[in-house]
Amino acid sequence: MRIGVIGGGQLARMMALAASPLGIRVHALDPAVDACAGEVAPLEVAAFDDLIALHRFADLCNAITFDFENVSAPALNELAAVRPVRPNPLSLATAQDRGAEKALFARIETAVAPFAIIDQPQQIAAAATSVAFPAILKTRRFGYDGKGQINVADASLLEDAYTRLGNAPCVLETRVRFQRELSLVAVRALDGEIRCYPLVENVHVNGILSLTLAPAEVTPLLAAAAERCARRVAEALDYVGVLAIEFFDVDGQLIANEMAPRVHNSGHWTIEGAVTSQFENHVRAVAGLPLGDTAAHGVSCMLNWIGDLPDRNRALTVPGLHWHDYGKSARAGRKVGHATITAPDRSTLLRRLHQAAEVLDRQAQIAPAIARLL
Amino acid sequence: MRIGVIGGGQLARMMALAASPLGIRVHALDPAVDACAGEVAPLEVAAFDDLIALHRFADLCNAITFDFENVSAPALNELAAVRPVRPNPLSLATAQDRGAEKALFARIETAVAPFAIIDQPQQIAAAATSVAFPAILKTRRFGYDGKGQINVADASLLEDAYTRLGNAPCVLETRVRFQRELSLVAVRALDGEIRCYPLVENVHVNGILSLTLAPAEVTPLLAAAAERCARRVAEALDYVGVLAIEFFDVDGQLIANEMAPRVHNSGHWTIEGAVTSQFENHVRAVAGLPLGDTAAHGVSCMLNWIGDLPDRNRALTVPGLHWHDYGKSARAGRKVGHATITAPDRSTLLRRLHQAAEVLDRQAQIAPAIARLL
Repeated sequence: MRIGVIGGGQLARMMALAASPLGIRVHALDPAVDACAGEVAPLEVAAFDDLIALHRFADLCNAITFDFENVSAPALNELAAVRPVRPNPLSLATAQDRGAEKALFARIETAVAPFAIIDQPQQIAAAATSVAFPAILKTRRFGYDGKGQINVADASLLEDAYTRLGNAPCVLETRVRFQRELSLVAVRALDGEIRCYPLVENVHVNGILSLTLAPAEVTPLLAAAAERCARRVAEALDYVGVLAIEFFDVDGQLIANEMAPRVHNSGHWTIEGAVTSQFENHVRAVAGLPLGDTAAHGVSCMLNWIGDLPDRNRALTVPGLHWHDYGKSARAGRKVGHATITAPDRSTLLRRLHQAAEVLDRQAQIAPAIARLL
Repeated sequence: MRIGVIGGGQLARMMALAASPLGIRVHALDPAVDACAGEVAPLEVAAFDDLIALHRFADLCNAITFDFENVSAPALNELAAVRPVRPNPLSLATAQDRGAEKALFARIETAVAPFAIIDQPQQIAAAATSVAFPAILKTRRFGYDGKGQINVADASLLEDAYTRLGNAPCVLETRVRFQRELSLVAVRALDGEIRCYPLVENVHVNGILSLTLAPAEVTPLLAAAAERCARRVAEALDYVGVLAIEFFDVDGQLIANEMAPRVHNSGHWTIEGAVTSQFENHVRAVAGLPLGDTAAHGVSCMLNWIGDLPDRNRALTVPGLHWHDYGKSARAGRKVGHATITAPDRSTLLRRLHQAAEVLDRQAQIAPAIARLL
């Protein structure tokens, strides 16, 4: 059994490591000859829109998936004609377009921030009156990690923001005042079974995930609302694989922010903190196998390493710290690795985070996790 | 950082999977072109005594280790002149020779079964009078998984047994009547720090490990005795890496049976059942890094798949079951994979073992685990 992954980044790499014990090989396709999945999986070097290479790649594999959402949807449709593509092209297309995504959330009765579509300059004026400011203008397509979005303080700045985003089709959203950011990672099997990991709390810095605390402390009601949303999204799209949904917690009510049709950075803690990792469950789903247990054991804090890695040898002195080096060279803003600190309970995790803050040069990054556990 | 592993079997394979997130690459050397580590790590195909190939291999690596104990000690000594070999050749040589091993256990005041050395036929008669029967005759070297040993019911059969073992240097041991088989996996770092996983209980069938229950239910006194033994062995040998010691539990007293100078089959449960796996801790030790936490979370049962794999898709329906396919073809007596069933407590583990017995064609293998948990 071979699974082809379009994209050869750290997500494909962690899928490959999870697939190997299942007797499943991951093959990755990426235009970069040094794509980091290549260290642990056979790598096909080709452009994402090279249809000949994509077909040759598909011929090698029993099923196709992807590790990022900006895969060309037409290319994926072409592959779907010859191999199962999981999640399906409809799921990808929905997640690729903030307009379609919002429409889906509305259809399944999940609250979203007030928004207006601006596909053409003529729609700017109407949007400015229908959406309260401060707001955020986001391109409908090709956004990730805070890219493709601009804060807009008031209506007078909207036209300029639209121009700065290249007059691309956009969504204007009211900026939600939230208490915290939560996300849910769910997985749906080929037979329709859905399992959810516990809700987690995320802290973003400059639009990039900085840390995840798992599980989040939430009421059963909030957890149920998030799971209901994930279940409806997955069923509406006939989704197969891992799916992540980001929410804002606004006075105990969930506002859906966006979905990711793939394994998700806020699910990395599951490698050591849950019975079955999101990577294994994604591979199981894509391969048509039964899902694994999504329960957490203990509590975890995932710290993203952005730009460069802190000192590994010092980090490994922290009890319960699990190191993940993606084998990428350092570069500003690049996700080059992460660490997950696991502990049996919150007070032990707090102690370990203090230790990590002591030995690593990342005090500012770790502080919000400590604050949340105090 | 590259670690060279002499041997490319499942142990090297699992080391490679554990090393990758640490930013460490494992390279394997094995004479078999289809050695199963080759699927996840660069594989150098060469005979174990091909000194030219070994030196070329060592040049690629920062440190050398091995995944089985029948590595040629002279070859390893040769490599030790150019690269750190961990554990060191003395440790390997001691574990390779049941005579030296027994002498070491005696030196550190660890009880062993009454034994006599038979290096030459002239020693048979003396051995037969000094050792009580029934006994076991074992070759001093090249024994593993029950190979190279013969049960000897009484003195009259000893000469014949010796001939059947090819007149090789042997150890004759009184057959110990034990209540259970236990083993301890320990790890010693370059700086001398030693950590031990909890004692586990093993069930062997035809000399091959069939299952491991972790942790074993033992008194603190018994656990302390096992850890003291491991600590003394590791310190006596200036050992670096993972070390396993097998014991018999005789009315609450430990009798050391043998040691393995490597990651051990009875430690496979640590991949999912402990905070840090034996494979990661071995890699950390060989690379000179700090050790990881050896605590178990919950309870685990590891089931070895010998000869062929049971049905994977049915197995994955068992909650908490973790599948390990080594990518080897089926062959009688061959270890082709294992599964570890984890659970938060013994009653849940018992229920899951019942489920496994229902869906897998391995009732007889699972029964002893169920019996021990009842």
